Amino acid sequence: MVDVIAFDADDTLWHNESLYTQTQEQFKRLLSPYCPAAEIESRLFETEMRNLQSYGYGIKGFTLSMIETAIDLTGGQIRGDEVGEIIGFARQMLAAPVQVLEHVGEVIPCLAQSHRLMIITKGDLFDQETKIARSGLGDYFQNIEIVSHKTQQVYADILARHAIQPQRFMMVGNSLRSDILPVAELGSHAVYIPYHLTWAHETPAEGVPASAEIHQLEHIGYLPGLVQRLEEGR
Amino acid sequence: MVDVIAFDADDTLWHNESLYTQTQEQFKRLLSPYCPAAEIESRLFETEMRNLQSYGYGIKGFTLSMIETAIDLTGGQIRGDEVGEIIGFARQMLAAPVQVLEHVGEVIPCLAQSHRLMIITKGDLFDQETKIARSGLGDYFQNIEIVSHKTQQVYADILARHAIQPQRFMMVGNSLRSDILPVAELGSHAVYIPYHLTWAHETPAEGVPASAEIHQLEHIGYLPGLVQRLEEGR
Repeated sequence: MVDVIAFDADDTLWHNESLYTQTQEQFKRLLSPYCPAAEIESRLFETEMRNLQSYGYGIKGFTLSMIETAIDLTGGQIRGDEVGEIIGFARQMLAAPVQVLEHVGEVIPCLAQSHRLMIITKGDLFDQETKIARSGLGDYFQNIEIVSHKTQQVYADILARHAIQPQRFMMVGNSLRSDILPVAELGSHAVYIPYHLTWAHETPAEGVPASAEIHQLEHIGYLPGLVQRLEEGR
Repeated sequence: MVDVIAFDADDTLWHNESLYTQTQEQFKRLLSPYCPAAEIESRLFETEMRNLQSYGYGIKGFTLSMIETAIDLTGGQIRGDEVGEIIGFARQMLAAPVQVLEHVGEVIPCLAQSHRLMIITKGDLFDQETKIARSGLGDYFQNIEIVSHKTQQVYADILARHAIQPQRFMMVGNSLRSDILPVAELGSHAVYIPYHLTWAHETPAEGVPASAEIHQLEHIGYLPGLVQRLEEGR
């Protein structure tokens, strides 16, 4: 029934959004002498959205957006040493240990025995590669696809390239917009496992269609049971 | 004789290093009230090398290194609006038109008729993808591999994944360190086409071994002739 199980990485295999949230808190504290916290947050999000077209996803682009927001919000009054602190935030994020989510350490080796596993993740190539290496999980995945966008076409191209039939493919992830909807539209199995934080950008514009192909789990620990039930046709 | 011809992208298919050189000139002018130009250049290079491990290659990492260098060299005295100018340099670089090198516009469509063409480039995923799209050349390449490093192992993995025999593979590029030496060591054909500027990091530590497998051309216009001579065994 299912030949290949692909996983999103950030907030599906390991914590990620929490790192951004923590950094935003530090950023708000840094700018608190200049500006109220709520305004900082909304301006940072605006700057990120404006820059997404030129920077793409990832920590380096986020850091450049923080610096730009700080300059804007302080009318250019931000000091060099304060900008240096923002660069220090980036360094902390890039060096942060990869914290694998609960159950991942048991579920991935278990599923790797019966299925071909892939990672399909978007973001910064260099950053994602080092996180996969540092997670210690890399060897369980036969293919790793790091892409700049996750659209239906991108998934279709990956399936074609690896000669995978859509109905025998399962995608597991925490983003309805990036991991679930485009895959469900291809007729593949989509397993939605929400993370407790969702970046506003990842919230889908439209509602999610009720579909037998979208399964929602509370945590990844339930995934082997779901796969088994699907294979047994229950 | 040659089934697949792969091309490096930056400074092989289009101008790139010249963009960095121009930006460095702007950066030196910006900091000229604080510091002599020669010191700016050497400190920026030091910062880039130190950050390569955490940032990888690309414009965003380069920009963060410029900002860090500016803070260091001014003892934190750099002003917010000056940091904003550095972010403006990044924006210019990211939006700069892709300037295809001379002869590329004729040579690539011509070779695509007789050979399977690939791009193997390192750098920032998002940035490289948009450059390939903007170059208008994307459709001539059957495979595009964007990697974070170009080592012998990385090339060996790509050849294995695409079932290409090393002796029937040709790599064309401007960096001895990244495009030529690792490929020649695999027993593939390596075609070295120097660009008039080379980033200091790309200069190989050791001398280049004399090898029949390394061909040097003055410009890419000579490539179809070389391919033809190799195929005819001359």
